[in-house]
Amino acid sequence: MSGALRQRCKYQPYLSKVCSAKDTIPHFKNGQYIGWSGFTPVGDPKVVPIALAEYVEQNNLQGKMRFNLFIGASSGTYNEDRWAKNDMIAVRYPYQNSGNLRTRVNSGTAKFADKHLSMFPQDLAWGFYSKERNGGIDIAIIEASEILEDGSIVLTGAVGTAVEMCHIADKIIIELNTAVPSFKGCHDIVEPWIPPGKPLNITAPQDRIGSLSMKIDPSKVVAVVESTAIFPGRAIKGADNDSRAIAGHIVDFFQNEVKHGRLPENLYPLQSGVGNIANAVVDGLSDSPFGNLTVYTEVLQEAMLPMFDSGKLKFSSSTSMTLSKWDKFYNNFDFYKNKIVLRPQAVSNSPEVIRRLGVIAMNTPVEADMYGHANSTLAGGTRLVNGLGGSGDFERNGYLSIMHCPSARKTKTDPTGISCIIPMCSHIDHTEHDLDVLVTEQGLADLRGLCPVDRARLVIEKCAHPSYKDQLTDYLNMAIKDCQPKARGHEPHILEKVFKMHANLLKNQTMHLNSW
Amino acid sequence: MSGALRQRCKYQPYLSKVCSAKDTIPHFKNGQYIGWSGFTPVGDPKVVPIALAEYVEQNNLQGKMRFNLFIGASSGTYNEDRWAKNDMIAVRYPYQNSGNLRTRVNSGTAKFADKHLSMFPQDLAWGFYSKERNGGIDIAIIEASEILEDGSIVLTGAVGTAVEMCHIADKIIIELNTAVPSFKGCHDIVEPWIPPGKPLNITAPQDRIGSLSMKIDPSKVVAVVESTAIFPGRAIKGADNDSRAIAGHIVDFFQNEVKHGRLPENLYPLQSGVGNIANAVVDGLSDSPFGNLTVYTEVLQEAMLPMFDSGKLKFSSSTSMTLSKWDKFYNNFDFYKNKIVLRPQAVSNSPEVIRRLGVIAMNTPVEADMYGHANSTLAGGTRLVNGLGGSGDFERNGYLSIMHCPSARKTKTDPTGISCIIPMCSHIDHTEHDLDVLVTEQGLADLRGLCPVDRARLVIEKCAHPSYKDQLTDYLNMAIKDCQPKARGHEPHILEKVFKMHANLLKNQTMHLNSW
Repeated sequence: MSGALRQRCKYQPYLSKVCSAKDTIPHFKNGQYIGWSGFTPVGDPKVVPIALAEYVEQNNLQGKMRFNLFIGASSGTYNEDRWAKNDMIAVRYPYQNSGNLRTRVNSGTAKFADKHLSMFPQDLAWGFYSKERNGGIDIAIIEASEILEDGSIVLTGAVGTAVEMCHIADKIIIELNTAVPSFKGCHDIVEPWIPPGKPLNITAPQDRIGSLSMKIDPSKVVAVVESTAIFPGRAIKGADNDSRAIAGHIVDFFQNEVKHGRLPENLYPLQSGVGNIANAVVDGLSDSPFGNLTVYTEVLQEAMLPMFDSGKLKFSSSTSMTLSKWDKFYNNFDFYKNKIVLRPQAVSNSPEVIRRLGVIAMNTPVEADMYGHANSTLAGGTRLVNGLGGSGDFERNGYLSIMHCPSARKTKTDPTGISCIIPMCSHIDHTEHDLDVLVTEQGLADLRGLCPVDRARLVIEKCAHPSYKDQLTDYLNMAIKDCQPKARGHEPHILEKVFKMHANLLKNQTMHLNSW
Repeated sequence: MSGALRQRCKYQPYLSKVCSAKDTIPHFKNGQYIGWSGFTPVGDPKVVPIALAEYVEQNNLQGKMRFNLFIGASSGTYNEDRWAKNDMIAVRYPYQNSGNLRTRVNSGTAKFADKHLSMFPQDLAWGFYSKERNGGIDIAIIEASEILEDGSIVLTGAVGTAVEMCHIADKIIIELNTAVPSFKGCHDIVEPWIPPGKPLNITAPQDRIGSLSMKIDPSKVVAVVESTAIFPGRAIKGADNDSRAIAGHIVDFFQNEVKHGRLPENLYPLQSGVGNIANAVVDGLSDSPFGNLTVYTEVLQEAMLPMFDSGKLKFSSSTSMTLSKWDKFYNNFDFYKNKIVLRPQAVSNSPEVIRRLGVIAMNTPVEADMYGHANSTLAGGTRLVNGLGGSGDFERNGYLSIMHCPSARKTKTDPTGISCIIPMCSHIDHTEHDLDVLVTEQGLADLRGLCPVDRARLVIEKCAHPSYKDQLTDYLNMAIKDCQPKARGHEPHILEKVFKMHANLLKNQTMHLNSW
């Protein structure tokens, strides 16, 4: 037992549970329901999943130790890739970002479903995903940065669904990570609930309604394992011209909204998805006249740290923080600690709080259609990319619901072979009733107050890649002509042709058609 | 001025504004933004809209007096049909139930868009639908049952968006209806807000957080018109065998949930859509062992009155009440008044409250697909039926999200020519991420915790009409075979064939195919 562990574990009875990762293996049986702490991809347990993977590999148990695996969102791809390779994941909820798991899911050899990230913890706690065992899960594996005198757990850089998991787990395994600082002071832990719940009394991103540590039933703790594992952060691609153009359109739009009194000068709290467009948007805001900004989001991003430094950003609330490099954060821990709070995802993504605060939601879809529906999950309508994440929580409930994507993406043979603006999304995660503004590098379409046909004209005009504008307009005109004289054209479509661009892509690697 | 009006109008300064409906006509100009009180179809103004329609008809102003018309949901079809016939509706938000307007919308001669009913009032108040005039509306026409000493308004049988409309209108016209009793005591009026709002401190359907009357700026009131108009209530068809079977499956399901501890014995507050299936479900609950029930919904329905009488139903919260006959309610007003509350639709449909209370949501879609998406608005993907209503507010946020429909509907040539279970919805208002349970007269599919392919198998097995089961299974197997070997089959589809059943319906009046 290291001195570091002794220092971090202030609850004496747990010291008798200290063991190696390998010692935890007998707790695990094929078919169990397992929860990991962590969220996209921070705060997940590391050494116990590694030990289990090694055990499976060394004993040729591939396909014979399969688990129902629940994690708040994605986890470190290192472990999830390895588990998927070893066929250790039978079922996975509610989001993933692992190449191997994705292949299994898309091949039908692992079961996956995505769910709004605000709802996943409550549905898990209410037993909806483990009806066969009448609710609960077998084991929660939780990464901690400190254990307090009362046996409660201080998590690391994410909260996710850890609270609910510990609440319903038969056994808890703690990975106490002594290679990261204690995150005490960063969290605002709210207990799970069954209806009727209480109001979440948050009226500003910095409001706290919970506690600094996660209370658990100490009798459930079967092992405390020291970990010094740090997985490399996720690298973010630099902003390209397209994402800078998108950011520019959004900043212009905000300025116009402020001018007309529909937004205050420091805007409303911002939510921004993960990825290079999202980072470019944050960069764009960084260079904008807007100040005193706040963030109410699910993942605190890389690009936000410099905004704390410059004073542009006052406060951030999230459930997780994704940095590619952690040194700067750790070295200035006391400075940043007062500017952030990490909450359970049931709270960070709560419709109640998002709507009350008037959050400005910004997310990137796979594709969006001319009427304002968006596909966030399934390329070509069938192939899982990552999952829904919190996009539905924020887009549905935000004061302004913005989605941004490039107007087109390349294929092997056509630099604009995939139009991100199509007649109908091949899969729909967000409906026309949930989108206010669509942005590409071409321009911004403000869809508020418009009927479907007017939306379609504006989306084609402002957002479509020039090489697709005529093709999309032809479809729209054809559909109007087909439907409206028969009085069935509120949202005109020709269902036989509606996916012709997608079919052409599969066949000819381009959505550019010779004819409709 | 009638004695009844004098008695009901307790704010003296308004008496100088009393005039006939016809006298209000000069306030109205082509192109204005007009708001009506009311909600589905109660509480709407009657004599002023009639006077305007007569004015247009007598002066041949059809198409020359067109308005942007906002109403909480649908209104009495008598006036809306007449306005639509006279081409008096240029734009209409966010729901409608008028045959003439529907034809115009589907023909492209009136602009309509639907919106989640919880969001419509806030978006209207924030100026999203009247950006051209920098927010606000010109005139709000409000049906009142009493005017109190402070000039505040007691509404009639609905609240809807009346509060927000009066807040942002330049002028207010009050229709004081002396043919209905004063509804004082029925309402719980909450003021409009801009972010950040305050928590809606409702933790049970009977909790009140507002006031009994609607405060307005008296200087905006330009006319008080006496009305004695009562439109006939909407007749509800009696339950047929199919809807009774659906109700039976739902009651069985609830009993099983109670048995497994996932529901309390008096269930959670119920939301139920409008229509004969919804009424049959309420009837089914009436005959079930469940007691002490509560309702948190948008429309209090006909079938709920007998449940108050029998003591089965303790309390109902809604924004409106739709009765086909009002005599019983008026004759026992004091009895019922203590068992109901009517709230603004921003509160009755608030995601915050729906989620907190654990509402059980039950609504009828046009069609549902095998993966669990639902179409509530557009038949054949293009033709507006009525609109989205509050289905999204409740299905997204409910503790249990249930949708129910017949497995098939008839066409002229085939008694089961339309399958309500199809490979992919031709329009999507509710996604697979929002549906827990799908029910038809054939059976109930509990989709919680299932991946897409398992959902599809269960939906076909439990919910599809027997004459479509093989056809749907063939499609599913074909799609799996096409997608999964290529590792793009998380949710298998063949986009070229996915709407073949819909296309066949248009061509041959049946979804029964000869072959795929």
